[in-house]
Amino acid sequence: MPYGSRDKAYANAASLSYLTAEQALADFAVLVTSLKRNLSAEGCPVVLFGGSYGGMLATWMRLKYPHIAIGALASSAPILQFEDIVPPETFYDIVSSSFKRESISCFDTIKKSWDVIISEGQKNDGLRQLTKAFRLCRDLKKTEDLSEWLDSAYSFLAMVNYPYPSDFLMPLPGHPIKEVCRKMDSCPEGTSVLERIFEGVSVYYNYTGKVECFQLDDDPHGMDGWNWQACTEMVMPMASSRESSMFPTYDYNYSSFQEGCWKDFSVKPRPTWITTEFGGHDFETTLKVFGSNIIFSNGLLDPWSGGSVLQNISETVVALVTEEGAHHIDLRSSTAEDPDWLVEQRAFEVKLIKGWIEDYHQKRNSVFSI
Amino acid sequence: MPYGSRDKAYANAASLSYLTAEQALADFAVLVTSLKRNLSAEGCPVVLFGGSYGGMLATWMRLKYPHIAIGALASSAPILQFEDIVPPETFYDIVSSSFKRESISCFDTIKKSWDVIISEGQKNDGLRQLTKAFRLCRDLKKTEDLSEWLDSAYSFLAMVNYPYPSDFLMPLPGHPIKEVCRKMDSCPEGTSVLERIFEGVSVYYNYTGKVECFQLDDDPHGMDGWNWQACTEMVMPMASSRESSMFPTYDYNYSSFQEGCWKDFSVKPRPTWITTEFGGHDFETTLKVFGSNIIFSNGLLDPWSGGSVLQNISETVVALVTEEGAHHIDLRSSTAEDPDWLVEQRAFEVKLIKGWIEDYHQKRNSVFSI
Repeated sequence: MPYGSRDKAYANAASLSYLTAEQALADFAVLVTSLKRNLSAEGCPVVLFGGSYGGMLATWMRLKYPHIAIGALASSAPILQFEDIVPPETFYDIVSSSFKRESISCFDTIKKSWDVIISEGQKNDGLRQLTKAFRLCRDLKKTEDLSEWLDSAYSFLAMVNYPYPSDFLMPLPGHPIKEVCRKMDSCPEGTSVLERIFEGVSVYYNYTGKVECFQLDDDPHGMDGWNWQACTEMVMPMASSRESSMFPTYDYNYSSFQEGCWKDFSVKPRPTWITTEFGGHDFETTLKVFGSNIIFSNGLLDPWSGGSVLQNISETVVALVTEEGAHHIDLRSSTAEDPDWLVEQRAFEVKLIKGWIEDYHQKRNSVFSI
Repeated sequence: MPYGSRDKAYANAASLSYLTAEQALADFAVLVTSLKRNLSAEGCPVVLFGGSYGGMLATWMRLKYPHIAIGALASSAPILQFEDIVPPETFYDIVSSSFKRESISCFDTIKKSWDVIISEGQKNDGLRQLTKAFRLCRDLKKTEDLSEWLDSAYSFLAMVNYPYPSDFLMPLPGHPIKEVCRKMDSCPEGTSVLERIFEGVSVYYNYTGKVECFQLDDDPHGMDGWNWQACTEMVMPMASSRESSMFPTYDYNYSSFQEGCWKDFSVKPRPTWITTEFGGHDFETTLKVFGSNIIFSNGLLDPWSGGSVLQNISETVVALVTEEGAHHIDLRSSTAEDPDWLVEQRAFEVKLIKGWIEDYHQKRNSVFSI
């Protein structure tokens, strides 16, 4: 933690300006190089592992620092979720289809709920009723705050839709979306849309049953740093389509995004920087010619999978795609409940990585024997 | 020029901190990308050209931004002149042998002169005598200042030892070292060592004959920026060997170098940064596996050639070495006096670069025809 404390490091744009992907890569380069030197391990090959943003870093580090790391396992790394490389609707379309596949009525309930919330909020006493219905700790000031809170729950649920109980973002049962939809769908006839929504979303925000009231403006996942990055480099266009999305329809609006960044951090985003620095357009060609020893692993339940690499690029730049996987599930600890496909996926990854290491030693030996 | 003016940009470490190789590469990446976009030329391949430091940037940009440039001509780029990759004596040994090959007596005169200067300076009235003998504009305060001024002249002469008259650092005749040595050697018998030195060095500092007195502390080549870079990233160990060098013998002394940087700029150098960021140790392996379409051109008269790549690395990473070439002579405008080897060298470079461009278009066409 630079500047001696989290508070000082996150205080303002002057210190936050070091929170960039390039700085992170340079830090790793210095760390790995100095570890190797200090541990007398300069001949030891290094393999990069990362999930999500960390997966992007692993990919980029393998491309930019091939002299430091021999390969990368990039799990759920949405390196193509920039500019116009993939459609901006991708993320919410995948979240939506993760719900639809469990239950169409669940999908429909959610899709209907946004208008209900708005019209409820416009009623006399409506905001107070919503505050009560959703057991909020503080009086709801505008319905958008509630909608964003629900949006987050659905998006995170799609990410952590693991086949066994987990506690990554929140304590959750296995197949949590199935459980959310079961709760919504199993309410007695006559239950209102908002009551169903509350039942469903409680699986995410209150699976332990211990929460007495809900804080909308919490930052339970420590996203402050990410929000800064999203407002500077990691500008990922998002939209919600009329047809396939269960979220309110909206187009990607760069200028309102930019305004928000100015308000929050007094910075202007650099929307084309990531593709300038790391490539992105025509990325497959660059990866094919300049990349090697990279595994892109993705689960199709994960809404970030749509912005990642889902097809093999070359013999050594490979895509591992699992139908039932969620956000970087392969990087989670193994459990007794791991499905067979997950056990096999990890074994295959280990096999590929072993191959890289053997290659490395073989090449070194042949150099020394000349 | 950032900050609106040279004075402001170079004012102190706060603004100078942007003067880095990484920032330069990022600036070029943004410039090239935006030019391509604004000129509707996104399908146009870009080739990088650079000499000296610019040649290092060209190499590094090709390695770090292969999605932006299809190849690089890196002329006289001493990318291996860092840490312990090449011996620190390399540079001054080459300067010295550039003099020795013209005339052993010239080499000997220079080698002898350093002690003569010191003992002259220790005499009563010695500094005033030296001031007069070397026609200095201001009183000499210590003999080191004179020695450094001479050292610079010899080093720059070796760099610009072109076969025709030129005006790169200074207006000079063709084969300027030959001319310096001719002047020194042709003095009548009985001419003192220091008189000979003055005759010789005048070829460099006063070829036009118009200089009335010499300023030792000038910065005629605008090296301020380079000195900052040398004190931060571009830490190139230099030493002078007892045997083959005509300069005063000295070992590389990092701590005194570091002290000088602290005095001049209030910064501490980062001597291992360049090899961490761009590689360097085992560079041939990295270049072989990850590099392509790079020409390293070097003339062996150039003292920087010893820190560059002088052997072919692969089919597309090639070394062009000319016996009689000096500092990035291939990047100078062609002249009527160009020797045949230079004409041929440039023609070969053009041929290689044409090949890269054809390759690029062929690959694109085959992608579009699928």
